[in-house]
Amino acid sequence: MDAIFYPRSIVVAGVSDKPDNLARHIASNLIEFGYSGQLYLLGRTEGRTLEHPIYSSVNQLPPNIDLAVILTPAATVPGLLDELGAAGVRYAVIESAGFSEFSEEGAILEEELCRIAHKWGMRLVGPNCIGIICTDSGICTIFVPTAPEEVPHGNVSLVSQSGGVVLTCIDSLAAAGLGIAKSVSVGNKIDLKESDYLRYFIQDAATRIILLYLESIVEGRQLVELAAQSPKPVIVYKSNTSQASAQIAQSHTAALANDEGIVNAAFRQFGITRAMTFREMMIYSKGFTLPPVRGNRLAVFSRSGGHAIIAVDCASQFGFELPPFSDALIEVAKPFFRVNVIERMNPLDLGTVFNFDAYPVIIEEAIKLKQADAILLIFNYRRETIPTARAVAEKIKALSQHYQIPIALCYFTEVDEVNYLERNLGFPVFSEVYEAVQALAASRDHYQKATQLQTAQHQPPAVPIPTDAPSKTRWLISRKTSSLLPLDQAMQICEAYGIAVAPWAKVFNLSQAVEAAARIGYPIVLKAISEQVTHKTDVGGVVLNIPDQVMLASAMLEMEHRFTQLNLKPAEEFLIQKMLSKGKEMILGAKRDPSFGPVVVLGLGGIYAEALQDVSIRLAPLSRTDIEEMLDELRGARLLQGVRGEPPADRFALIDAMLRLSHLMVENEDILEIDLNPALVFEHGLQVVDARIVVSG
Amino acid sequence: MDAIFYPRSIVVAGVSDKPDNLARHIASNLIEFGYSGQLYLLGRTEGRTLEHPIYSSVNQLPPNIDLAVILTPAATVPGLLDELGAAGVRYAVIESAGFSEFSEEGAILEEELCRIAHKWGMRLVGPNCIGIICTDSGICTIFVPTAPEEVPHGNVSLVSQSGGVVLTCIDSLAAAGLGIAKSVSVGNKIDLKESDYLRYFIQDAATRIILLYLESIVEGRQLVELAAQSPKPVIVYKSNTSQASAQIAQSHTAALANDEGIVNAAFRQFGITRAMTFREMMIYSKGFTLPPVRGNRLAVFSRSGGHAIIAVDCASQFGFELPPFSDALIEVAKPFFRVNVIERMNPLDLGTVFNFDAYPVIIEEAIKLKQADAILLIFNYRRETIPTARAVAEKIKALSQHYQIPIALCYFTEVDEVNYLERNLGFPVFSEVYEAVQALAASRDHYQKATQLQTAQHQPPAVPIPTDAPSKTRWLISRKTSSLLPLDQAMQICEAYGIAVAPWAKVFNLSQAVEAAARIGYPIVLKAISEQVTHKTDVGGVVLNIPDQVMLASAMLEMEHRFTQLNLKPAEEFLIQKMLSKGKEMILGAKRDPSFGPVVVLGLGGIYAEALQDVSIRLAPLSRTDIEEMLDELRGARLLQGVRGEPPADRFALIDAMLRLSHLMVENEDILEIDLNPALVFEHGLQVVDARIVVSG
Repeated sequence: MDAIFYPRSIVVAGVSDKPDNLARHIASNLIEFGYSGQLYLLGRTEGRTLEHPIYSSVNQLPPNIDLAVILTPAATVPGLLDELGAAGVRYAVIESAGFSEFSEEGAILEEELCRIAHKWGMRLVGPNCIGIICTDSGICTIFVPTAPEEVPHGNVSLVSQSGGVVLTCIDSLAAAGLGIAKSVSVGNKIDLKESDYLRYFIQDAATRIILLYLESIVEGRQLVELAAQSPKPVIVYKSNTSQASAQIAQSHTAALANDEGIVNAAFRQFGITRAMTFREMMIYSKGFTLPPVRGNRLAVFSRSGGHAIIAVDCASQFGFELPPFSDALIEVAKPFFRVNVIERMNPLDLGTVFNFDAYPVIIEEAIKLKQADAILLIFNYRRETIPTARAVAEKIKALSQHYQIPIALCYFTEVDEVNYLERNLGFPVFSEVYEAVQALAASRDHYQKATQLQTAQHQPPAVPIPTDAPSKTRWLISRKTSSLLPLDQAMQICEAYGIAVAPWAKVFNLSQAVEAAARIGYPIVLKAISEQVTHKTDVGGVVLNIPDQVMLASAMLEMEHRFTQLNLKPAEEFLIQKMLSKGKEMILGAKRDPSFGPVVVLGLGGIYAEALQDVSIRLAPLSRTDIEEMLDELRGARLLQGVRGEPPADRFALIDAMLRLSHLMVENEDILEIDLNPALVFEHGLQVVDARIVVSG
Repeated sequence: MDAIFYPRSIVVAGVSDKPDNLARHIASNLIEFGYSGQLYLLGRTEGRTLEHPIYSSVNQLPPNIDLAVILTPAATVPGLLDELGAAGVRYAVIESAGFSEFSEEGAILEEELCRIAHKWGMRLVGPNCIGIICTDSGICTIFVPTAPEEVPHGNVSLVSQSGGVVLTCIDSLAAAGLGIAKSVSVGNKIDLKESDYLRYFIQDAATRIILLYLESIVEGRQLVELAAQSPKPVIVYKSNTSQASAQIAQSHTAALANDEGIVNAAFRQFGITRAMTFREMMIYSKGFTLPPVRGNRLAVFSRSGGHAIIAVDCASQFGFELPPFSDALIEVAKPFFRVNVIERMNPLDLGTVFNFDAYPVIIEEAIKLKQADAILLIFNYRRETIPTARAVAEKIKALSQHYQIPIALCYFTEVDEVNYLERNLGFPVFSEVYEAVQALAASRDHYQKATQLQTAQHQPPAVPIPTDAPSKTRWLISRKTSSLLPLDQAMQICEAYGIAVAPWAKVFNLSQAVEAAARIGYPIVLKAISEQVTHKTDVGGVVLNIPDQVMLASAMLEMEHRFTQLNLKPAEEFLIQKMLSKGKEMILGAKRDPSFGPVVVLGLGGIYAEALQDVSIRLAPLSRTDIEEMLDELRGARLLQGVRGEPPADRFALIDAMLRLSHLMVENEDILEIDLNPALVFEHGLQVVDARIVVSG
């Protein structure tokens, strides 16, 4: 992809000499940004603009130009691309709109582009995009006039599905003193996709932080796995999260909506930081510009008592600890205080320390004494102390860089001064305590997850799965007559993977039923197995808590009667199942997401939990740690520990079953959905009571 | 309080001629801000500074100075205050620290201040504060050097418990182009409290928006009732929300923590907007600077498709509707579009409309056609279109003001330009879609609540309470032997207020029990009434589901046996109660909060709901609308509508019981806590199963 960001030659197609011609803006931007390779202009009519000739035919161009940037009417793009391909161009940025985001005809044109690209082995950016930027090589193919000062050089690289958002991100970063390494607007991403750019930025030496703005995530699995392996932090701003936005996103960049629950879970699981606004994107970028936050202890120094209280609220909200300072630190700080009594309390109130030179001294001592994993300095000052405050900022920056410890500087003064510092200090400056702590927390969470992912790689397989499980499962699925497997087959698949199910037997008539029930032990449950019936309970196909043989006989008779009344074929097969009582009701589920692949879901059962959809989601395969996290994530988690004197539920058995479910889902691509609902977790062990498995085809 | 903000004469106490003397900064600020009244300086030693004499004794001052501003060591303040009181000073701002926030000695000094103030009929601001500002009268008593340009004149007035926060708020507002009318730092608020200032600002002609930063809310009831009557929006930033911050807040401004659940509920109930950061405070202030949002329909116009998607996400998050545009509007817009096909879709994508003059034209038409209750214009542009974009902003401002319709301008361009507009347009400019929608939503919610509160005032009493209810209740309470009332008395109090309880009878022996049970009908519940026992269930003092007389006899015997084993006096009184089944378990509760007075709590019962503390809180007395809102607020609300084929719970009966509970709590100040847990709500009616009432003394 170097050919895109570091091309030796570029042709811009669609140029005229009219001042409002969009492709001419592209050429003009390239010149302004100091692109030093060969630049060729192509247009409908020959002419001259920007001191360059405009050619009217691909034939007039030299062969094998590295990169074409195309902004001509949609209908003309396929023909042009074909000619460029023939002339040896292998990379094209197609900025024209009017493709699948616009109409069916556009969608057909888009398919043609794919065919042509494939024919010539070309790689495409776009279409329907605003182009690329590389501050390293002086590339800016944005079709609105853009001044190089508007795009400061830096180490953040950006992938954006929306063109307009590219510039908003750049403005927002610039305001925070952060600059751009590379940027690409991916548009309809018919060829190169977010994961391709992500892969490139991960290995790109100029990039340290990667930002993505996405309206849809295709190949989500690939994206998150790449991010997980990235030594560079990845921040994603994903929009199109509401039902209402789905329609408009479709017409914007032909974007399809994702399952937001899965997106959130996947990001958390793979250490991606999700921004919900441009401002958050900028805050997190600032956070990742600091040295990593490697732990949970925060030290706060504040000139203002009010801001210190706010800092404690924020620390508490983001899960930081505020350990009290050691005597050794207080000894160093004491001489600077007016009164000789200072509390060891964290935050340390510097309100009475008017000698600002003391701040770096105290903070350096705190670093040396390893008082915290991250430091927050809240500095309120007025106009007359600007020079001193700036000097403090410089010293803090030096300390942070020298000791490689994250220090969030939170400066409260006139906005002009804050803006000045943000842009000129070369070190992040925050203007809101909440945001400073939020940035530190994002860094902590990211690096904690990264470490965890690395450790997980070296863990042995988590649970022993019988070697014949996949073949048994394949065989059971092969016997399917509809996409919903019969209950007994679903139960057998669970058993094949070592997931315990409530004792059961399949029977065809009353005498078999009576024999099975006697073996299993009353009370039992009777369930009809019928292909005509998807929801057994709705048609009276389930009878619970049958106490004895007499009631079993009458239950079977009544069921037959009900089916007949409902014009259903009476069931010919039944499941006799042990009636279980007690146990904590859980829902174990899995499904195959079109973008993220197999995901596993854990939820609390019971009517209230279901109404609240108290579930936790993860991409499979799961590690033990993943499941521990899922369990802790459930809002009703503490119910599993046993309340009102109940014994705790068997967490180990639950984790074991989840691991097996994860294997089952990963190893059997034909399975689309699994619902083990409920699974009862006892003080010792777990048993599945009902299983629903949907397979493809 | 005009004497504080518009004094004809001021004495500043604590002044010396040293350049870093804090009281001297106060005097210097007053001069800089152009205070035109008489200014007197008082210090330890006579001298001259800032072209004013420094007097060393109160005797040297003229009598009856309007306002004293005191910044002398804490120990000297009482004496000084007394002298000033004797000299006819009736208002004092005490900026000195070292009182109850600092030590026990300080607390004693503070009490002395109160006594002296009372003696002379003086009113006090502070102590431990940063003083007051009034841009109208050129007052600025802040003890750090402050330039008048740092405090732009405007119509926002501010009450802050923290001095440092005053300046942060002012900076933050200034950055948004908003100015200050008045500001007061309340410190330890030993005399004048937030409600006093709020009352003053509500009637102050120079104030349009009121901001409060509070670390504790004393007299919360008064505060929220004032805010509810205020025609001016009230925004509160309340910190000290965490357990960890409680300690530090105590040492900052002697602030005590509030119950955050009650604070949130009270704010919502009385139309107070709660800000969680300085930025939110500023965003809401911008929102309230626009004409009120009087409905839920939002129209979005956007130059960028990406930002339009984000706008839809935000609209959806904040509960706005985006109705499609009418044909009439589209007819007006059409000529400006390059292609002749435009969708009636809202947001309207202006991406291809490069003639920016079209925007105000289209928006004016949308206003005339009453397309929406609020409008959002998202405008992305680059440097070269700055003049046009500024002209658009001016026109939008004029439209908003002329038609009195809220238009949120969201401008995306280089930050310098956004900053310029924010400060110079004289109309709110947003730089984040989320924040623009958040501001509009805050305005909508506030004005909707204000209308609702006005309507509620004219409603008849909501429910007929028996006239003898209060006297019966008083009599029952008077019979108490401990603060927890016996169950039978609690039940009788419920009945007195017309809250249905499960049929019950109080009995003293088996034969009475058998008779009562027969009357009530089996199955019944047996409960011990014993003063020794607070938690009946823990000692086996409750036996459920007794089917008949034999089992009742054995239950009573066994209970006696258990009590004896536990070394408890066997119960001499019992409650026989109808055993109820079915019904939706709810928890109805009430308590008396030290700051907010009587509050009522509604929660779902059942183990899961209790673990999640799914409750809704309101200050009593409640209106029907309040309870409707409480019901909708419960996370598990839809369970009341009946799921899995259950009938819906009797919402009317539940509301009725809540109204009665509210009366009960309001009319009986001796009651500290009520817990009706559970109350069972049936398809028809509600019955309380267990009641716990705690009274004072």
